Amino acid sequence: MDVDRLKKQMSFILEMDKSKQVFRQTYLSNASRKENDAEHSWHLALMCALMSEYANEPIDVAKTMTMVLIHDVIEIDAGDTYAYDEAGNTTKRDREVKAADRIFSLLPEDQGRWFRSLWDEFEAAETPEAKFALALDKIQPVLLNDATDGRAWEEHGVRVSQILSRNRKTPEGSEELWEYTKGLIEKNVALGKIQDDREK
Amino acid sequence: MDVDRLKKQMSFILEMDKSKQVFRQTYLSNASRKENDAEHSWHLALMCALMSEYANEPIDVAKTMTMVLIHDVIEIDAGDTYAYDEAGNTTKRDREVKAADRIFSLLPEDQGRWFRSLWDEFEAAETPEAKFALALDKIQPVLLNDATDGRAWEEHGVRVSQILSRNRKTPEGSEELWEYTKGLIEKNVALGKIQDDREK
Repeated sequence: MDVDRLKKQMSFILEMDKSKQVFRQTYLSNASRKENDAEHSWHLALMCALMSEYANEPIDVAKTMTMVLIHDVIEIDAGDTYAYDEAGNTTKRDREVKAADRIFSLLPEDQGRWFRSLWDEFEAAETPEAKFALALDKIQPVLLNDATDGRAWEEHGVRVSQILSRNRKTPEGSEELWEYTKGLIEKNVALGKIQDDREK
Repeated sequence: MDVDRLKKQMSFILEMDKSKQVFRQTYLSNASRKENDAEHSWHLALMCALMSEYANEPIDVAKTMTMVLIHDVIEIDAGDTYAYDEAGNTTKRDREVKAADRIFSLLPEDQGRWFRSLWDEFEAAETPEAKFALALDKIQPVLLNDATDGRAWEEHGVRVSQILSRNRKTPEGSEELWEYTKGLIEKNVALGKIQDDREK
């Protein structure tokens, strides 16, 4: 056994524990508190296992599951940037690339390259797997926001144009899941939980 | 599209959110609070992706990842039973089977059968995948307990014979990971964090 390899893997695994302390803006379905990255990623991996049938193109499910499991671990260093925080989003990419450089280099080189390429693929959003992963990443908070009567949307005064703009690539991952999600968004617009800023 | 099928999947996904509120006895690595089932399962899935090379027998990684993602969801109904809670463990199996009956039946029938069979397989601990999943499930809390200077072990006055008995099947999943884990256990025995009740 390569003891150095195992030690690197174990220290990466321990570093990953910090994802449990990176909090997002989305509330849990009972609104008791906000969700953290580890929980969010677990939820996406489950969705991936159950919902790959709705991907527009055939996907490698195992690869997509691994992709969603690690897609946010760079936030251990870079922090969560709220979707509708414009200032935060101008510096997001730089912070996240720097984080990826550090975090994935904790692993043995072959596994560091593998995880980095999965993360780069997710960010580029061009392959069927990345498009589907990205769709799940956008749909899951809508499910939770809907379940909490739009609490996070209301707190941040979110406008429907922002949500639709943020979801412009979601249909590329899954037309069917996007149809369902659009229904939840429109329901919350009708209820006044999301501000309707579209021209009538 | 089969709308009824998608609705069942979505309501299962929403039900799963409750796993984020089932707390275990293990502390996060910075000891700030205890870990919940969703975080724990995410952590195991990551370990599975990175450490399948240490499985005693070749395993289907995607299957094992799905298994660890769902292995604790029955605790939404059954609650977490602490490893060394003797009274709780006498009723555990009954509570968990009842929970599995309800929870997996929320899914479309084919997926409910699939997840139930994965859970049954995990519980039976006989296939290479189940043995490896079980090993990870036992090893991960040792990593966290060691990282927190044995806090959970000390709080519960855990004896080394209890840990070794609980881990009797761990080497069947991975001799190599068990060797590493045994090192952490012995270190904590030497430090007095785990009570040494072995005959000298």
